[in-house]
Amino acid sequence: MPTLYYAPGTCALVTHIALEETGAPYETVRLDFAKGEQKSPEYLAVNPHARVPALVTEEGTITENLAILGYIADIHGAEGSIPRGNAYETARAMQLLSWLSGTVHGIAFAALFRPGRFSLDEAVQKGITEGAHANLTSHFVELDDLCGAGWLAGDRFTAADSYAAVFYRWARGAKFDLGLYPRWSALVGRVIDRPAVLRAIAAEGLKLESFA
Amino acid sequence: MPTLYYAPGTCALVTHIALEETGAPYETVRLDFAKGEQKSPEYLAVNPHARVPALVTEEGTITENLAILGYIADIHGAEGSIPRGNAYETARAMQLLSWLSGTVHGIAFAALFRPGRFSLDEAVQKGITEGAHANLTSHFVELDDLCGAGWLAGDRFTAADSYAAVFYRWARGAKFDLGLYPRWSALVGRVIDRPAVLRAIAAEGLKLESFA
Repeated sequence: MPTLYYAPGTCALVTHIALEETGAPYETVRLDFAKGEQKSPEYLAVNPHARVPALVTEEGTITENLAILGYIADIHGAEGSIPRGNAYETARAMQLLSWLSGTVHGIAFAALFRPGRFSLDEAVQKGITEGAHANLTSHFVELDDLCGAGWLAGDRFTAADSYAAVFYRWARGAKFDLGLYPRWSALVGRVIDRPAVLRAIAAEGLKLESFA
Repeated sequence: MPTLYYAPGTCALVTHIALEETGAPYETVRLDFAKGEQKSPEYLAVNPHARVPALVTEEGTITENLAILGYIADIHGAEGSIPRGNAYETARAMQLLSWLSGTVHGIAFAALFRPGRFSLDEAVQKGITEGAHANLTSHFVELDDLCGAGWLAGDRFTAADSYAAVFYRWARGAKFDLGLYPRWSALVGRVIDRPAVLRAIAAEGLKLESFA
């Protein structure tokens, strides 16, 4: 049975939802970032980069969200992860996921929440945070434009929709004006209406109102 | 026949090599970044993010390197792109590619070469560039540690090895001391010994010495 290492409300929620959507059995280990548990010797043995998610499988450990999501799709099922069966559809979903996990999360949200990754100089960090606000606003406009009446990447619910919900919660916490993004808001409403998503949110101890 | 849009010496060389390795027919369109051709109306219609690579296929356009590489693996063959056939091996290669394309390129090299993506303030940009030097040095130590006698992601040549060669050339251009990384150097030597790699390098008009 695979074991997911996560910290509540991080991008590991995307993976947590994907596992819950498949219906396959799995275990979880929760890390408390406030206590620095991601830097404990035990966890560094799982992921030397001290990041979540990590998935420990019978075959070995996988880190990096896009890698884990692809593995879940291949082994357990693609609902909530990455579409399978048509190379072009898979690629288009991966294009969107690459932008969400790389540009929006890895660059812009990281610059907002963790400017210390970019510079140890506090004056520089302040400037990085300001730049991140501008970049995120531009990304949010684009994300809202991508939202239609259904799901983000084709006919089925995928990890891209879960990312949209996780980012919405982060943007809310960072006091962005979410009233500017009605289509994104409506998408998140559909995401948190799914039973598997509600189970993952509850398992992480997050308040549903934090997504609304 | 698919068409690859690239600019010489960028991360699109990874994709260019993957296409060349498969032996499948394809066309290329070269963009001159010095002339700003990535921001022309014609190219923005291909990729609104003004980045390379982009692959135009019969089914539509794919952007983001990891998405294109996965498509090449599914349609044309996995040599030089991403392993197929075993979910765990695919995931482990994707883990490495996600780190290389996201953390090393998208964050650290981008901060070094394009600090304006992070802040419009020139004083902040200077600090970002300095932070990038420190981050890249740490990444290069890790990359050198990952290099053994063969290829980076299993028994076969993959896109991870091509990334290692592209980064080596960039690091050389940025005056990093590559003598500190003998295993990485040796890997790049094996990469540029491959006929398909040599063809892609020649097609882009790059000097082979810039990889040595």
